[in-house]
This record gives sequence, C-alpha cells and structure tokens, in this order.
Amino acid sequence: MSEPVGDFARLDTDRTRRRGYAEAVFCESKTPDQVCAIAQVAPPGTLFTRANPEHAAAVQEVLPGAFYDPLARLLAHPGTPPEPSGESVLVVCAGTSDLPVAREALHTARFLGRSTDLLVDVGVAGIHRLLEHESRLRAAGCLIVVAGMDGALPSVVGGLVSAPVVAVPTSVGYGAGAGGIAPLLTMLNSCAPGVGVVNIDNGYGAGHLAAQITAR
Amino acid sequence: MSEPVGDFARLDTDRTRRRGYAEAVFCESKTPDQVCAIAQVAPPGTLFTRANPEHAAAVQEVLPGAFYDPLARLLAHPGTPPEPSGESVLVVCAGTSDLPVAREALHTARFLGRSTDLLVDVGVAGIHRLLEHESRLRAAGCLIVVAGMDGALPSVVGGLVSAPVVAVPTSVGYGAGAGGIAPLLTMLNSCAPGVGVVNIDNGYGAGHLAAQITAR
Amino acid sequence: MSEPVGDFARLDTDRTRRRGYAEAVFCESKTPDQVCAIAQVAPPGTLFTRANPEHAAAVQEVLPGAFYDPLARLLAHPGTPPEPSGESVLVVCAGTSDLPVAREALHTARFLGRSTDLLVDVGVAGIHRLLEHESRLRAAGCLIVVAGMDGALPSVVGGLVSAPVVAVPTSVGYGAGAGGIAPLLTMLNSCAPGVGVVNIDNGYGAGHLAAQITAR
Amino acid sequence: MSEPVGDFARLDTDRTRRRGYAEAVFCESKTPDQVCAIAQVAPPGTLFTRANPEHAAAVQEVLPGAFYDPLARLLAHPGTPPEPSGESVLVVCAGTSDLPVAREALHTARFLGRSTDLLVDVGVAGIHRLLEHESRLRAAGCLIVVAGMDGALPSVVGGLVSAPVVAVPTSVGYGAGAGGIAPLLTMLNSCAPGVGVVNIDNGYGAGHLAAQITAR
Amino acid sequence: MSEPVGDFARLDTDRTRRRGYAEAVFCESKTPDQVCAIAQVAPPGTLFTRANPEHAAAVQEVLPGAFYDPLARLLAHPGTPPEPSGESVLVVCAGTSDLPVAREALHTARFLGRSTDLLVDVGVAGIHRLLEHESRLRAAGCLIVVAGMDGALPSVVGGLVSAPVVAVPTSVGYGAGAGGIAPLLTMLNSCAPGVGVVNIDNGYGAGHLAAQITAR
Amino acid sequence: MSEPVGDFARLDTDRTRRRGYAEAVFCESKTPDQVCAIAQVAPPGTLFTRANPEHAAAVQEVLPGAFYDPLARLLAHPGTPPEPSGESVLVVCAGTSDLPVAREALHTARFLGRSTDLLVDVGVAGIHRLLEHESRLRAAGCLIVVAGMDGALPSVVGGLVSAPVVAVPTSVGYGAGAGGIAPLLTMLNSCAPGVGVVNIDNGYGAGHLAAQITAR
Amino acid sequence: MSEPVGDFARLDTDRTRRRGYAEAVFCESKTPDQVCAIAQVAPPGTLFTRANPEHAAAVQEVLPGAFYDPLARLLAHPGTPPEPSGESVLVVCAGTSDLPVAREALHTARFLGRSTDLLVDVGVAGIHRLLEHESRLRAAGCLIVVAGMDGALPSVVGGLVSAPVVAVPTSVGYGAGAGGIAPLLTMLNSCAPGVGVVNIDNGYGAGHLAAQITAR
Amino acid sequence: MSEPVGDFARLDTDRTRRRGYAEAVFCESKTPDQVCAIAQVAPPGTLFTRANPEHAAAVQEVLPGAFYDPLARLLAHPGTPPEPSGESVLVVCAGTSDLPVAREALHTARFLGRSTDLLVDVGVAGIHRLLEHESRLRAAGCLIVVAGMDGALPSVVGGLVSAPVVAVPTSVGYGAGAGGIAPLLTMLNSCAPGVGVVNIDNGYGAGHLAAQITAR
Repeated sequence: MSEPVGDFARLDTDRTRRRGYAEAVFCESKTPDQVCAIAQVAPPGTLFTRANPEHAAAVQEVLPGAFYDPLARLLAHPGTPPEPSGESVLVVCAGTSDLPVAREALHTARFLGRSTDLLVDVGVAGIHRLLEHESRLRAAGCLIVVAGMDGALPSVVGGLVSAPVVAVPTSVGYGAGAGGIAPLLTMLNSCAPGVGVVNIDNGYGAGHLAAQITAR
Repeated sequence: MSEPVGDFARLDTDRTRRRGYAEAVFCESKTPDQVCAIAQVAPPGTLFTRANPEHAAAVQEVLPGAFYDPLARLLAHPGTPPEPSGESVLVVCAGTSDLPVAREALHTARFLGRSTDLLVDVGVAGIHRLLEHESRLRAAGCLIVVAGMDGALPSVVGGLVSAPVVAVPTSVGYGAGAGGIAPLLTMLNSCAPGVGVVNIDNGYGAGHLAAQITAR
Repeated sequence: MSEPVGDFARLDTDRTRRRGYAEAVFCESKTPDQVCAIAQVAPPGTLFTRANPEHAAAVQEVLPGAFYDPLARLLAHPGTPPEPSGESVLVVCAGTSDLPVAREALHTARFLGRSTDLLVDVGVAGIHRLLEHESRLRAAGCLIVVAGMDGALPSVVGGLVSAPVVAVPTSVGYGAGAGGIAPLLTMLNSCAPGVGVVNIDNGYGAGHLAAQITAR
Repeated sequence: MSEPVGDFARLDTDRTRRRGYAEAVFCESKTPDQVCAIAQVAPPGTLFTRANPEHAAAVQEVLPGAFYDPLARLLAHPGTPPEPSGESVLVVCAGTSDLPVAREALHTARFLGRSTDLLVDVGVAGIHRLLEHESRLRAAGCLIVVAGMDGALPSVVGGLVSAPVVAVPTSVGYGAGAGGIAPLLTMLNSCAPGVGVVNIDNGYGAGHLAAQITAR
Repeated sequence: MSEPVGDFARLDTDRTRRRGYAEAVFCESKTPDQVCAIAQVAPPGTLFTRANPEHAAAVQEVLPGAFYDPLARLLAHPGTPPEPSGESVLVVCAGTSDLPVAREALHTARFLGRSTDLLVDVGVAGIHRLLEHESRLRAAGCLIVVAGMDGALPSVVGGLVSAPVVAVPTSVGYGAGAGGIAPLLTMLNSCAPGVGVVNIDNGYGAGHLAAQITAR
Repeated sequence: MSEPVGDFARLDTDRTRRRGYAEAVFCESKTPDQVCAIAQVAPPGTLFTRANPEHAAAVQEVLPGAFYDPLARLLAHPGTPPEPSGESVLVVCAGTSDLPVAREALHTARFLGRSTDLLVDVGVAGIHRLLEHESRLRAAGCLIVVAGMDGALPSVVGGLVSAPVVAVPTSVGYGAGAGGIAPLLTMLNSCAPGVGVVNIDNGYGAGHLAAQITAR
Repeated sequence: MSEPVGDFARLDTDRTRRRGYAEAVFCESKTPDQVCAIAQVAPPGTLFTRANPEHAAAVQEVLPGAFYDPLARLLAHPGTPPEPSGESVLVVCAGTSDLPVAREALHTARFLGRSTDLLVDVGVAGIHRLLEHESRLRAAGCLIVVAGMDGALPSVVGGLVSAPVVAVPTSVGYGAGAGGIAPLLTMLNSCAPGVGVVNIDNGYGAGHLAAQITAR
Repeated sequence: MSEPVGDFARLDTDRTRRRGYAEAVFCESKTPDQVCAIAQVAPPGTLFTRANPEHAAAVQEVLPGAFYDPLARLLAHPGTPPEPSGESVLVVCAGTSDLPVAREALHTARFLGRSTDLLVDVGVAGIHRLLEHESRLRAAGCLIVVAGMDGALPSVVGGLVSAPVVAVPTSVGYGAGAGGIAPLLTMLNSCAPGVGVVNIDNGYGAGHLAAQITAR
C-alpha cells in the first residue's frame, strides 16, 4: 500500500481509496529534483504546495499543462479543475496582504471539486464593507476566513451565518504576536461558535477541509 | 434585535433566525442568579455550558425537566434532544481523562439535532485499539477527536477517513506544554489534511461545529 | 515631597500638584492594617483599588462615608464623585463576565470628574447589538472598550468613531491565550487606528487615562 | 460605502465621514504597483506607512509633491501638513536608535493637523537629561514616549505630567525580551497611571491616537 | 567532604572552607522534620530560607535563640548577626508589596556580616522620592534594588551611582508579564551598566551576592 | 486485542505481548472507583502512577498486598518486585526536593526487573560531593539523573560515564523558568552527548526507559 | 588531562578513556581554520558535526580520506566505520524533509560502531506504511525516530516495540510551534513509555545515545 | 549636564562625575556617520560597543590610535588601557564559540582599569578541565563566566569560589531555548549563590559590572 520514490520518499498509494483525495506534495523543503521524481509517479489530482518557480518548472516538464499560481505557490495536475460538485465555498479575506494564503485555499477547494468565490479586503475596521455582502456570506456552504493582525474577522463572520467557518490566521503583522500568533489566538478564542482553525498560513489545509465539509 | 437582561447581559434574540442555532450561555464566570435570570428569557434550545451543580439547580428551578450532565457540565432545555437529522457525528476520545470534554461535545451535537456515538480510550500508544474500529470511523459524517498529552490521535484518524475531523485538545497532561498547549500545537501541525481545531477543552465548540458540518 | 507611612510606605504628597490627580493605593498585596494606616494620611480624592471586603471595612472605619463597589473592588473617598467636567466617557463591555473590570474603569473616570455611561454585552458575535448603538458610540469624548476571549470589540468600535479608544483586555477565557494574553495581543494588533491598550484587567488604568483624555 | 481597487483591495470610502481621518495604506506587504493603484484613488490626507524607496517612487509618480521621509518610511499627500489645530503633541525618544519610530509618530500627528515637537536621547540611565526639560514635558497636550531596551521612560514621564501618555515600545535591543517584548511588558506594567500602549514599532498608531486625543 | 543526613540529604561540609559561607537550607519543599534533622548538624552561620512558621518552630526547638522574620521567611542561627565588616549594603525597594523580598535580602547580607540599610517605596512614578536620597544612594558599597511591575527602578539607580547594583525582580504585578517576567526582562535590558540580576523573588541570592561584593 | 472497562476505559490487553511490559494506569485524573475497576482486570505487573492515598486504598482493597510508596505516589502489584535481571540502574538526585520523582523512577525500574541504587543530594554547587562517587557512577548500566532548578547535573554526569543517561527535569524551583522549564531546557541543551530527556517530573517514564535500556 | 589548541580551544584528551568515545567537534560557529587546527590534534574516531563544505575541505586537507556527507553535514575520520558490534540501530524518518537529521543520526551510530538501517517517509497520516514494517521495527536493539510537524511518530512506534526509542524533533514545519517546538512537546508528552528525547535537529546526539544503548 | 549631538543624540556629560565611568556608545543601530559625530565630542575613556569594521574605520579617522578588536566588536580610546588598579578579573569561557562575548567582557574590564585573564573551553562535560585550574579560579577578585548551550558552568564555578560571579549567557546553541534563553534560565536558577546575571551576549555589561565590583 506504499511505494518508495528513490531513497527519500514513499508514496501513500492507498490514500485516494482510503480518504477520497490524493496525497499532496509539500515542496518547500524538497529539491526540484525530488519533487520532479515524485511528480512522475503521483496519481492524477495531486496538488503540489509551497512550490517556488524552480519547483514549478521541474514539475511542468514532466507534467505538461499543470496549473501554477506563483502567488499561491500551488501546482495542480491536470491543469483544469474537475466539474464542481457539492456546496460552494466562499473565501473571505481581511486584507490585501492575506491574498496569497486566500488563493492557496481557493485553488485547493477548486481542484478538489468545489465551486468557489472570493471576497477581498473586508477587515473589521470598516465593518460596513463586510455587512454589504451579508447575503453572499449566507449563501455559501462553507466559508474560509483568512486574516492576519488582529484576526477578528472570523468572529464577526461566524456570528452572521449558519454554515461552518474555517479560520486561517496569517503571518501578516508585526510586533507583539508576530508571525501569526496573535490572529491564531484570536481565532481559537472566537466568541462565535462554528469556527474550526487551521495552522498559520495553511491555505491548503483550509481549502481541503472546506472541500470535505461541502462534499455532499 | 437584542434584549437586555437586568443590567448585566443582553440577549441576541435574532441569533436563531440569523444562524439557525440559539445563543449558548457560558456559566463559568456568572453567578447562579445571573444564569437563572437569563434562563427565564432564553429561547428553547438554549444550552448552558460550564455549569456547576449550583448553576444547574438554579436553572432547573425555572426550567424544570432540563437535562444536566455534571461530568460534561452541560445543561439543555428542553431535556430531550430533537429528532436526529443530517449525518451522524462520532466522538473519538484518546483517554479516560478526556471524557468530560468528549461528553460536552457529544451532548452539544445531540441537542443540536444529530445522532451521535462515542469511542473511548483508543490512544495511539496501542494503535491496534483504534484500527479495530476502522469501519465505524469511516461511517461517520464528521468525527470529533478529543486528546490531551501528545495529541497525536487526530493525525492518525485524519489519515484514515474522508469525512472532516474536528480536533479538540484537552488540558490533560503535565510538564512541558501543560494546560493543553502540547496537543494544541500537535493538532495545528497535523500532517493529515482535513483537521479543524478548536480551543483547548472546548467540547461545546467542537460539538457545535460538527453539528453544522453534518446539518445536511 | 514624600512622607513615610510606618516603615512600609512613602506617600507621594506632591503627586496632586504635579499631575492633577492623587496617588491611588493598590490594596491587593497590602494588609488591611497597612491600607488603614495609609488611608489616615491620604489626601481627598484618593482611590483604593483591588480592595477586598476586609480592606473596605478597614478604610471605612477611618474614612466614614467612603464609597465601595465590591464587584469593582474599588473604594473612593469622599463617597460622592465631583461635579462632572470635560467630555463624557462611554464604557463598552463585550460580555457579562467582563463587568467587574468595566465597572472599575467607570468608577475611576467618574471619581476623577467625568460623566460616564455603560453599554453591556455587545460582543462581535452578534454585531447588530453593537451597531444599534452607533450614535451613542459617536457621542462620547472617549470610549473604554473592555473584552476578554477574542478581544475583537475594540477593532470594530475603533473603526466606527473619531474619539480615542482605550482598550482593556480581561482575563476572561480559557485554553490557548488564557489569562488575557489572547485579547491583549488582538488589541495591540488592532487593524483600526486610535486604540491605546492598558494591562490585562487594568480597569483603573483605563478609567484614569480616559479621564485625562477628556479633561478638557 | 466601499470601492474595489483591482482584485486585491477595497477602499473604505466612508472612513473620513465616519471617523474624521482617511484610511492609511500599509505598504510593507504590498507591491509598488498595488500601492500605486491605490494611490490613484485614495482621498487627500491619506498616509502611506512602512513605505520603502520603491513604494515612494511609485506613489510620487502619480501624486507629485507627496512628502517622503525615508527614515520614518512615511509618505503623505498633499506634501504640506494642514494648519495645526488642537493641542500640541510632544514626542519623547529614549535613544538614537528609536528615532525612526519617533519620527513616524511625529509626522503622523503633524499631517493629521497637530503642532509637534521632538525631544531625543533622554533615557532614564541619565535621568537628569529628562528632568532638565520638565516644563516642556508639562506644556504638551499629549506625550508620545518611544523607547526600546528596558522601556522605562514612560513610567517616569507619566509620573511627571497630567496629560495622557502614549507609549511606543521599539524593537531596539537584544537577548532576553528582544524584538520589543521587554519594553512592551514594561510599559503595560507601568506603575504610573495615564499610559496607553500601542504595538511594538507602531509609530503611526501612536501619532494617530495622539492626534485624536488632542483634537480639541 | 560531604555528610549524609538521613536518606534524604547530604551536607556540603566543605562549603565554608571552600567558599567562606555556609550552605543555606531551602525549606520550601522540605518537611519540618527534614529541616529539623538538617538543623541538628548544620554549622553555625547557616541560614534557612523560605521557612514557614512550622519550619521555624521545628528549627527553634533544636536551635534555641535562632532569629526568625516571618515576613522574610528567613531563619538564622545564631540569632544575632556577626559584627559588620566590609562595605555597607543599601536595599532600595520600589513598593510596599516588594518588602518581603527586600527584607530577605537585607537579613541575608546582615547575617553574612555586612552593615545594611533600607529605603522603601521610592518607585519611579514619583521620581523625586528617589532623588531626595541621592547622597544616601552614593554612599553604599553595593545597592540591592527590589522591584515588581515595570521593574524600572534599577535602571534609574544604576545611572546615579558608581557602586554595583544587584537587581531583584519580584512577582508583584498582574496581567501581561505576571509572575515577575516583566520586571525580570526590564532589568536584563537595563540601559544603565553595572546591574547584575538574580532570579525573581530571590532575596537570599541578592543578599548573598551583595555580601560577597562588599566583603573587602 | 483490547477490552472495555465500563464505559470509560479500554485495556490494551496485547501490550505485554507486543512490548514486554504491561500498560500502566495514570491515576491522577481518574476517580478511585475508576482505578479500582481497572485494577480488577489489570494483568500482573501493572503499575499505578500518580496515585494518591484514596487511589491506593481502592486498589489495595481488590489487590491485597500491593506495594504503595506515598512519596513516589506509585502502586505495584504484586507487591514484591521480580528477581532482578539485566544491568543495574543508578538513580542520581540533585536535591532533597527532587526525591519524590527520583523514587518514582527507582521503583519503576525495580518493578520492571532491574537492580537499582540511589545517590541523593549531589548537586553541582558542591561538585566534590558527586566526584567522590565516580566509580559508583561508572559501574551502572544506565543512570537516571533527576534535577530541578538549574538542571546542570546531567551534563556533568554525562561527561563522566560511558553508559546512557536518562535526564528527568523536576518542577522544583521558582521564578524564571519555573515549573521545570529551566532544567528541561538545560538538559535538552546538554553539552555532553548520551543524554535522553523525558518530560518534567516524569519519573515513571525515566524508570521505564532505563529498564528497557538495561534489559539485556 | 586537557590540551590547549591555539588560544581558542582545549581538547579533552581524557574523554575516550573516561567515556569510551572521543569528543566531537561542533563546527557551526568555528572558522575553517579553527576546525583545521583542531583536526590536526584530534584522536582517531573524532566526528565533526554541522560541517559545511568549507569546513570539510579544511579537514580533508589535513585528514585525507575523511568521510563527508554534505546532507548530514558530518565528517568522520578515519573514513570507514569500525566493524559493527553490539545491537543494531534502526532510524525511522517521518518525511523526506527530515532526512538530513536522520542521516546525521545514522552516520553517528555507524561510526561509533553499530550496524544501522533507515526507514523513510512513514509518517502517521498513512499509518499502514509504518505497520507494513512491524517486524523490522521489532528486530532493532534501539530505534531513532525522527519527525517534524506534529511529531506523532515516536508515540506510535513506542507502542509497538520493546526496545528503547530515541526521539528527535526536527525544525521542519511552519506556523504555530515552528522551529521544532511542536514536535518537541509532542515527544515529551508521548503517551507511550520508553521514549527519550534529544534537542531539536540533534541527530548527532540521537545517534550517540543509541550507540551507547546498544553497546553491548 | 547634557549636550546635544546633531539632532539625533544627547551626551550625558555628567556621567563620569556621577558614576566614575564614561557613557559607552552602542554602535549597532547607528550609522558610521552618527558614531563618528559622537566620537568627536566623547570624553576620553569612552568605549564603543558592537562596532563593525565600518564603525571602526569612522572612529579611527577622528580618534587615531583607538584600539579595535573585530572579534569583540569593541573600540576604545585612548588605545592603551589605564594602569590596572583594584582586584583582578578572570574571564572563564565554556566553549570556543563563546569567545567573542568573553573578549568583549575582558576588554571592557581592562579598559576600565582592571588586570584581566582568560580561561577558555572548560565546559562542564569535561569537568576535570575546570578543576585543574581551581587555584586560578580562587585567586580572582571577580569571575566572569561566559557560556551558551546548557549554561551550567556558572553553577559549578560559583560553588568553588568565594568571589562574586558575573554570569553571561550567550546565544550559542540551537533548538529548544535557542538564542540564549536556555543558558539564561539556567543561570538565573543557579543552585550556587553569588551569581549575578546580565543579558544574553552582553559582554560589555559583564565587564563593566566586574570592574565596579573589583574597583577597590
């Protein structure tokens, strides 16, 4: 049920049968050569996350047509997402600086088979910007809320909707609680129920969880 | 859309319409008198969390028949849960000491309208105890995994199922990472995707999120 | 410019001339006898903070008519506040559990000579509860915003008003970021400008700062 | 009440009406192109913070005459501040290394309409340097105190004046409590009342708060 | 060079010869019986620290005439200190709440053979209280500065004198940096040179170090 | 391969076959009734850790003759250890206050079948106390070194012997790094190789690991 | 028993006699020249850890034939390991990114005289990958388990075998608990006994400890 | 009593009279031009710390003959130290990597007028290396002990001598407690009395304190 790749990796070939989704490849601490070797044996539907342009070039050589978004640092093959099924996923993003993580989440949900939409720069310091979109918030099957700094957005969104909220803290910010610790703690202490939190900057994890939640 | 209770609280009377679930009452830092005053105006379906026996007695006086589980410290009124709808929720609990949190999660999901089940003491140090129940794990619409100490259980469970996993770290443990920090970090860093984390000991939040996920 | 009290304290007798406000007496780590000895020489307008009932009884014996709020743990002498001057101070409180700190802030501002008002239980999970009071928020010369858990309220309030906001994190909450660290970090990272933060549970400091801000 | 900028930002066009001050643009995690696009639609009085020379060049191309201080990393347009109104703001700076933050605070208050002054290198290790300026300290309507390392200066200043003190910890220092944590904690625990704290290195936030405090 | 005491301790009988001072007995985690057994074999000049009244009674039964200060929780035998030699030690104490630690430091230096003096409640929020005593500060051979909360006092004192300063943070305070972390970090980052820091609440360590410094 | 105990536990009945040692029962967060129920089905050789006197009484009722050391809070049944095999284990203990943890380690190794010995109160401040026992240190097959406060003892011991060292930090100490964090970090950063660290106060884990190391 | 090297180091020439293993040279904060000078006098069997290519070139010039693995950053001289003795060491590695640390551990054990083997990429998210190798796990005399992110692998492995487990957290991961803190805490809180932990990324320490454990 | 230098600094011209030592110039966050401007007015005996080669060149242009040690990053003018007076200072250094900090301490004490000596690479893992020098340790009037990693050396040294010990943690090390936190905590928790701690890597502070201690 597992297959070695060179002497440095072992593919979980049973993953799709067991979980319904292929194993993703985390590129950040792998060489382009290692990623390329894995790409040659990875099943269709594999996502490559945290991929820099060198990783992307290496993968696209053996998987021509693979999709690559350099901002989101995500590769997908085949390059067109499956026909959407299940409920829709809405990604809500507090600020411009949170966009790379928001797009990683969006693409992940999209390539795992969901219809997706994005709402940008609606942080709580101008709460009316968010409330203008209340009906759009209520229509989604699952919301991914991405925020750095004070991380207050998921608490407000969670109080407005009945669908589950996946909260993603980002490392945007500085000073006390830098590196995303401040928004992470805010989200874990959200006074609105219905909020599940993933690790700082983990757009992939958020998109994957949202895709599972909206699967049917 | 909000109604004052004495000079100390304000009921979010619009919550059920807006979110589909009534606001819960967090009893821990309220006096029995305050909780009792809120109970008199709270809509049906309200849960009272972190309720000690004094809180329970005060509530049951004005809401006779209310359900109370002293281990889970949870009160519900009316005392019988609604007819289950949606998909089922399975609560998986690493050790005996994690039971109070696991039961708070279970009752919450149950009183919000889900069918629920509980699997106890299947920590990863005896991994075969968990694998014996693989088909039961696969049948659930959402899994709540409750663990203290090393908090490793959600990573293993998340790798076995296609349904979303809500991970709840508990404050069980001692020494480095005590108070639940160790399992919280483990869960946020889970190498299995599909895991959303709630705050330490937050059984209520986990049960609520799972009920929303399995609503349809 | 300073006067010894027994062998354990030294009164800053020049404080009122220098700063316009008398030195306060922090009772928590003093014995009732020590507090009583200080009360005998303290100038009018002195506040006694973190005073338990034993402290209160000791002070009221030598300063009959002193005001005492056991919830706020604050003593003031003389027992009636001065005629209000300056602009008004509005205390906004996220939840019922934050009330002790909110009232310490309110009484402090009131006994330092401001007109004050209190808005309770308007946390961001039911944002409409807050927005109902938008004109009241806009009318204040300074707002004190008191919140535990996610501490998100000052960011929202700060985005609605032109007056300065004094943010007070409280130790209400549990799990990750407990003891008030989570709301403290949230407030320091507020994405709304115009927010000054005081220490966790420091209602006295917030009330004092607000009184200075609205002095003219 | 909000206007999209490309697909990456949304201007809070109602901010000036609601709060009396325009929204600022935090440049650090934006590209020069993004900042330039925002500059084209930003209302007069907008400040651009954490702007490097590339950001500055991009903005000055579309907003000729904009003011830029590379040390403070702040851009303002129009390039001359409004006629001062309200009370004056005095910026007190503990050491030479704290100057960039001090100047960011000073320019912010100045461009929001206050008269400002700066007192440099008066750290508490040579307390007489500060006391020489006691009358200047007493004359200000609000003091911004900027300090790294031990962060002790706001406690001393707060004990000398009746005006509010805005304390800004800086990331100057090394070893235990590096990155500004040491002075942040010192300031939050100030034994002098009347001190409101902003995030580490947040000169903009301090200047903005001081401008609001001294508005009338 | 070492001698067992029961099966639970081992006396460093060579300590006085090697270091010039006898080993102290830390009572806090020992039973009165254990402390009593050690007292029976301890050499003259032994100090017993963190001793509660039960420890004191047990020791005084076998060492009649032993000195005990319940506030400082310190026992010394013989009960009168040696004739002072070396330079004098001045203990400077920021607030009333820091007195127990200050007195532990003072008694330790006194029983190790120094002349000592105490200056109480001269915190930096009223800096003139300290400056009144400048000549007394300058006369000491070593200063022990004890402070909680912002811990700013050693930086100011260190800048006024040429003698070494031993800084003792105390656990007085609350909120961010509670338990003494805030003053500890302040003292380690002191912008005045000539400051050596001991552990939080470690009055014994400070008094011992000061006695060594002033030995000749 | 696992057997339910009531509705609160599940015995890993396969553990002894798989690992060679029975599962231990962590009593701290279990009721005496729960521990008693588990004791009735636990296989011979089971250890009960963190057992208070109530737990002990409950167990000894169903397992008469069980050994109980209230200082170590450890129960063992049968009450006499097996005939020693393998190499010997030497427990080295820095101070009297570390004895409870040291004895938990010693009894664990002893009841898992090793010959054991104990060396008490040989902390590094009197290094000669340790060096007197150099040959005894060198004779052991494995050393367990237990220390709180500065936790420096394992580094010194590790540099003297060729056998593996199991280091146990204890929560003895106060101030900075309290709760055992200081000795834990010291031990993890030991400049001597050959040191494996277990959690703070985890005498059981240390004794178990040492028993495995010396098994043959 | 010690010999100076220039004015910057001192060789512990007695180490091999005392401990059975030569002192290793930690290259990271030394210049190539310093490492080279030490290499000229180091006894056979010395390992050079954290060696970059410049260090390697400098050493290989004076010690021709020295072994160098740039991934593991380890140098050994002589370049062929001794004939294996004692029990075998199995290195188990959770992910591809953990390989450098795993190989440092493996080479260390190998050059200290053990037979070694490596099992790669068997993280707990695909638990079947690990269980396929159960007999191989059971055959080892000591297991070194290397993992980053959630660090859950040692708990599972420790529950499957009777041999001691040396757990090595790696700095692989991001977000909360980055830098290896998350897996370190997980491993210290392992719910399986028989796990000794070394510092983050300390492959050398793990290999050395395993070699000592399996020496006979 | 203070003199402005440009618009960025203010010289404490009274420092030498008040404290007996001139103010030092911390170069790290100053430009070479700023340092040069200060050098032109600094009194004889001024030390420049954390000076890189650019700082050094700028200073030596206006102060020809100034001493510079690039390893210690310290400049002194005049370039020859004063004739030694007072007692001698011995700097004891645990490892080669701690040398830069050790030399900063040594030069500081030397240029403040003390005779100094250096003992290198005597870490506790080879305790005999230290004990060989016991008489040299005992002869010093003050010892500065510099150590990273486990930071255990000051506890051992403090137990051997009657003179005061100034302990300097260094940022040498990695993993848990990196950046010097581990040795800092170890030193604050030293089980030997007579140890005063300075900030991580603060060789200047240690040397200055030692010079004051040994002044007479």
